[in-house]
Amino acid sequence: MATQGQVITCKAAVAYEPNKPLVIEDVQVAPPQAGEVRIKIHFTALCHTDAYTWSGKDPEGLFPCILGHEAAGIVESVGEGVTEVQPGDHVIPCYQAECRECKFCKSGKTNLCGKVRTATGAGVMMNDRKSRFSINGKPIYHFMGTSTFSQFTVVHDVSVAKIDPQAPLDKVCLLGCGVPTGLGAVWNTAKVEPGAIVAIFGLGTVGLAVAEGAKSAGASRIIGVDIDSKKFDVAKNFGVTEFVNPKDYNKAIQQVLVDLTDGGVDYSFECIGNVSVMRAALECCHKGWGTSVIIGVAASGQEISTRPFQLVTGRVWKGTAFGGFKSRSQVPWLVDKYMKKEIKIDEYITHNLTLGEINSAFDLMHGGGCLRCVLKMHE
Amino acid sequence: MATQGQVITCKAAVAYEPNKPLVIEDVQVAPPQAGEVRIKIHFTALCHTDAYTWSGKDPEGLFPCILGHEAAGIVESVGEGVTEVQPGDHVIPCYQAECRECKFCKSGKTNLCGKVRTATGAGVMMNDRKSRFSINGKPIYHFMGTSTFSQFTVVHDVSVAKIDPQAPLDKVCLLGCGVPTGLGAVWNTAKVEPGAIVAIFGLGTVGLAVAEGAKSAGASRIIGVDIDSKKFDVAKNFGVTEFVNPKDYNKAIQQVLVDLTDGGVDYSFECIGNVSVMRAALECCHKGWGTSVIIGVAASGQEISTRPFQLVTGRVWKGTAFGGFKSRSQVPWLVDKYMKKEIKIDEYITHNLTLGEINSAFDLMHGGGCLRCVLKMHE
Repeated sequence: MATQGQVITCKAAVAYEPNKPLVIEDVQVAPPQAGEVRIKIHFTALCHTDAYTWSGKDPEGLFPCILGHEAAGIVESVGEGVTEVQPGDHVIPCYQAECRECKFCKSGKTNLCGKVRTATGAGVMMNDRKSRFSINGKPIYHFMGTSTFSQFTVVHDVSVAKIDPQAPLDKVCLLGCGVPTGLGAVWNTAKVEPGAIVAIFGLGTVGLAVAEGAKSAGASRIIGVDIDSKKFDVAKNFGVTEFVNPKDYNKAIQQVLVDLTDGGVDYSFECIGNVSVMRAALECCHKGWGTSVIIGVAASGQEISTRPFQLVTGRVWKGTAFGGFKSRSQVPWLVDKYMKKEIKIDEYITHNLTLGEINSAFDLMHGGGCLRCVLKMHE
Repeated sequence: MATQGQVITCKAAVAYEPNKPLVIEDVQVAPPQAGEVRIKIHFTALCHTDAYTWSGKDPEGLFPCILGHEAAGIVESVGEGVTEVQPGDHVIPCYQAECRECKFCKSGKTNLCGKVRTATGAGVMMNDRKSRFSINGKPIYHFMGTSTFSQFTVVHDVSVAKIDPQAPLDKVCLLGCGVPTGLGAVWNTAKVEPGAIVAIFGLGTVGLAVAEGAKSAGASRIIGVDIDSKKFDVAKNFGVTEFVNPKDYNKAIQQVLVDLTDGGVDYSFECIGNVSVMRAALECCHKGWGTSVIIGVAASGQEISTRPFQLVTGRVWKGTAFGGFKSRSQVPWLVDKYMKKEIKIDEYITHNLTLGEINSAFDLMHGGGCLRCVLKMHE
């Protein structure tokens, strides 16, 4: 390719400081170094984690940066030693790497690869601990090792999932975060079994993906809990069988659910990031075996709490990141499942805009009625 | 038997009010009603749960009552409909029942049988919601459905484990609580696998039983954590390979353990009942898979807390009661393991006294240097 080995100047949405509108800038994207991959991003979606860091509440947030972590694109070029992808491959950048070599990857117990974490956490690349993004020589930080709000991005090769080239990039971009997180929380973390009673706190994209996962796992009752009753109609399409609005009750929501289920649910999922809801999600679980999975990301410094008796009497408290999926190995499998119509994606996409409209897209996300807004990155 | 169907008058240690010395009284023990078993207690040990209720800190504690829940004896008589034991059977009364019929027993997921819980929690028997103990017509409450600090006690048939008549009652009485709790926490709740690194907080009887269980499960490192360094010599005999005294460090104990283990332990066990230690036990676990099991009983009203990030990054928080063992089914199996010398019991017994010396026995328990004190109930 003509661009290979060259700096590419392209459009990107830059977050200069917390809470200030993103600015569409011409950024310079350096060529990939050893073990790196430069990707032309075709479509990116917005996720609440982008908004969280943008808000300034993320103590690890670095500015200026290029946000974005739920996207799909095509490899433009690769650095030295990269063997598993080549230019032209269709890919999904993955914020959760999978190196297959570290203690975590080899454990067989977790998807939390540690290989590039120190670099991605610091907004740089492993090779030289520097950014590949700059504007007139001033570096712009990477975000989550993905930075998909740029027409071109550079990621570590251990963070690239190669997918079926037939898959529509404007759809499968959602497999970069929210949908796998919800499905995997059910399939990998909780391991919901047929007949189980499930409660889902928060009916956004992740919560709906939990519902879809629970339905496919054979759950007998899928109880959606949300303070916005308007969400129920949509939620039905994803498998939610009952709806509970905490505002309709004068008692604690955990007690409402215990009463509705003759002792509590078998599995609960917190998909909001609210520590009080996390407690309710644990305490609505059935004595003896109920398992609660935390998916939502709480604000920095906040803590969960409960009486230890809740655990001594058999409830289990766990959490999940990216649904426990091994990214490079399993994102392609999820793409295949979508192509075989075994999982939904289209139904989560409520809005389509362009990169230039990204600030409006964030407004939509905060306004309700929006599940996922997908941005087209190139005209 | 001459006593069958008759009220038996015998000695028992009565707790009249919190923190006041127990009083050895002549109590009347009524005959067992339908579904009940009257047992001649031969030996009972003391456990910290007895001391906890006696202290008045247990909000569900009822006075006057007869404490005690770690004992062995011989069936004196049975009530109507009792088929699984008969007079002369050697038995261990179990505070955790197993009816094999309730939702809990049938779930295959828990040992927390619910059949007689409402009665045992209220200090009475299910059949007529009354006590079988009285002194001159004034009822004395049952405790944990066992009340083994009496020469004779009445328990529900679902709470009686029939054991090998060859087993020495002065030893196997310990299989009524502490030893199974520790072993089961490892084998049933955590499911420790060969090579695992284990941390144990608190090296009393339960903590030592955890060590023994971890050793038999093939753990590669068993780290004992206690503020009393004198406990280490004894702990070695139970399998502890390293000892950490939090007082020897200027940093948080969870960080000490993370540093000692290149990232954290695979399994941790809290055997004290201190909510701060419960937090440390969770947070010393390895990212991605570390599992912490709460065994200790915290004081009423106290809460555990942590950052949800601890769970989202793969740690699991659980708890256990009676080590997850199904009492009637598995206590006899534990007795058999003891008879085959596959588990220790003798080594936990540091003192032997008589029922009349029970107040001294509690003093010993609080004084340190005592693991289990076994009381001989009849001269």
